[in-house]
Amino acid sequence: MATRARFLVLWGTPQDPAEFERHYRDVHIPLARKLPGLRRYSLSRNAMPIRGGDAYYLVAELDFDDITSLREAFGSPEGRATAADVAVLAAGASVHSMVYELEDVG
Amino acid sequence: MATRARFLVLWGTPQDPAEFERHYRDVHIPLARKLPGLRRYSLSRNAMPIRGGDAYYLVAELDFDDITSLREAFGSPEGRATAADVAVLAAGASVHSMVYELEDVG
Repeated sequence: MATRARFLVLWGTPQDPAEFERHYRDVHIPLARKLPGLRRYSLSRNAMPIRGGDAYYLVAELDFDDITSLREAFGSPEGRATAADVAVLAAGASVHSMVYELEDVG
Repeated sequence: MATRARFLVLWGTPQDPAEFERHYRDVHIPLARKLPGLRRYSLSRNAMPIRGGDAYYLVAELDFDDITSLREAFGSPEGRATAADVAVLAAGASVHSMVYELEDVG
């Protein structure tokens, strides 16, 4: 049974989408890609709500081998820089982020 | 650049966790595993909130090759049965679900 750790970030619609996109593309993605131990980084720009809530503007997933690797990544200088940049982005868009470990069931 | 489609389900803490777990394990997982085209089904029971929101009790991810396969799965008899069972579970726990396509960036 495979287990790995994911950082999931759900972004609401930005106040200024063009500026958010510019910052995300030119500043945030390059920072996040430097996270040590990052195994996969994926984005979605077209989330569709099914039950109980709004659509999100952007969903980001950052995957690591395990929760220890994830914690080490976010404790590193690159991780602190990425987290600080989330705070910059969050000034212009709501954000809901969480960490979890995945357990495959099928 | 790989793309695939994900159904993400974020469950709040159930009113009756033991009953929710029993139903999820004995009824819901067997239904969801029958979804045609389901490539991966993973659960997490230990989501930790980072920014902007509560912890979720359970996070479920159901992955399909693409959005067409996902839509076909949820339009199938198995899909309708699974969705109906979500409604049963949702009587005892808040749920926020969404569909999105993934685009790898790193």
